[in-house]
Amino acid sequence: MSQSPDVTAAILVIGDEILSGRTKDKNIGTIADMLTEIGVDLREVRIVPDVKAEIVAAVNALRARYTYLFTSGGIGPTHDDITADSVAEAFGVGIDVDPRARAMLLERHRPEDLNEARLRMARIPDGADLIANPVSKAPGFRIGNVYVMAGVPQIMQAMLDEIRPTLTSNAPVISETIEAGAIPEGNFAGGLGAIAAAHADVSIGSYPSMTPEGFRNRIVVRGRDAEAVAAARAAVEALLPGLRA
Amino acid sequence: MSQSPDVTAAILVIGDEILSGRTKDKNIGTIADMLTEIGVDLREVRIVPDVKAEIVAAVNALRARYTYLFTSGGIGPTHDDITADSVAEAFGVGIDVDPRARAMLLERHRPEDLNEARLRMARIPDGADLIANPVSKAPGFRIGNVYVMAGVPQIMQAMLDEIRPTLTSNAPVISETIEAGAIPEGNFAGGLGAIAAAHADVSIGSYPSMTPEGFRNRIVVRGRDAEAVAAARAAVEALLPGLRA
Repeated sequence: MSQSPDVTAAILVIGDEILSGRTKDKNIGTIADMLTEIGVDLREVRIVPDVKAEIVAAVNALRARYTYLFTSGGIGPTHDDITADSVAEAFGVGIDVDPRARAMLLERHRPEDLNEARLRMARIPDGADLIANPVSKAPGFRIGNVYVMAGVPQIMQAMLDEIRPTLTSNAPVISETIEAGAIPEGNFAGGLGAIAAAHADVSIGSYPSMTPEGFRNRIVVRGRDAEAVAAARAAVEALLPGLRA
Repeated sequence: MSQSPDVTAAILVIGDEILSGRTKDKNIGTIADMLTEIGVDLREVRIVPDVKAEIVAAVNALRARYTYLFTSGGIGPTHDDITADSVAEAFGVGIDVDPRARAMLLERHRPEDLNEARLRMARIPDGADLIANPVSKAPGFRIGNVYVMAGVPQIMQAMLDEIRPTLTSNAPVISETIEAGAIPEGNFAGGLGAIAAAHADVSIGSYPSMTPEGFRNRIVVRGRDAEAVAAARAAVEALLPGLRA
């Protein structure tokens, strides 16, 4: 893929419950879909446990390398919610209860219910902007190029909707799918490789899936230039007839 | 979590189709569940694109740090399947068509159908052991502490079944779930934090989920010592009554 889009992203999912298998992550796919829609190139994903040193190291590695870093998980009121403190440490800034975040919590909780645990959800690193949470009020935040969001999928989605209009994007990626059906991958792989080499301005992938009737294959051509994608697609379509097993 | 299990693992998922959102990963959850069942501590997951330098860097970072590294994706016959070559480069060893792997492919394909593309699936790094693929024959392989598996979930699962009996494990983790129901997290978070501090030999997590009736919370106590888990569970159960909103 010879495209060199300027706007890139990484995702960092934080939580022991994902690594134990107890909770199956849904946020990676949701964020990936949104980034594809707006033309931001997702380059890397990491999942790390609720361990501060791991979170700090991953945040610093990923924010240095990509345009945007999106995190999910670890911003609730319990002792294992350490994302905000970890991000503050990664940036080397202080963290304290933020009056704006506290006011948001008061939209949902009575003042006498704002105990120490709930106020943890108002702890925001110095210099961060808040990300509104229309579902349960406790906000996420943005600091530098890092967007810190909740782990509960419905809340993460709502925060993502808040963020989306603010993101810079590339030209959207055009994606064309060519159904190869039951043609075995090994029958078209050689020809497809030659097409990929001749059309270096797009990326071409081959994706098998197993069905009750056996393998079915899809070829996907992706790129930002409509003419280049159309030319590669035409080449793939010309390749397939006659390759059935 | 003060446990220091010796046997740890990481997962590396390889593939543009996951990062674009086109394919939603299922392998992470499958491998995570298996590792939890046998008591291996999954510590990190990464997803990288079909780019050799990225795969090499991730393989070398993760294999150095954890007991086991499991990879999925990128071992098919098409030009974008570059995992085997990348792993060989990560280990600094040669790679060529392996006679054992070629023999496996011949169980499925006629000799005249073993074209150059299909023979890519028999390219195995020098010194690797093969992982049988009962579904479609093209094998995975193990080199050092790295297990290289297919991306198609049914094949990955079959390879995982092959590997499982060969893995060293810790004592299995005991996981106990206490339903907090509609008790708000902010009501029990303070007490739960105190329990977590007093029971440092287990890990305690709080996991909210959104339902049509509002948030429901679960508290999970995990550890390798049955008595320690039972003691922490009892403390959590004693905490909850009386905390309803």
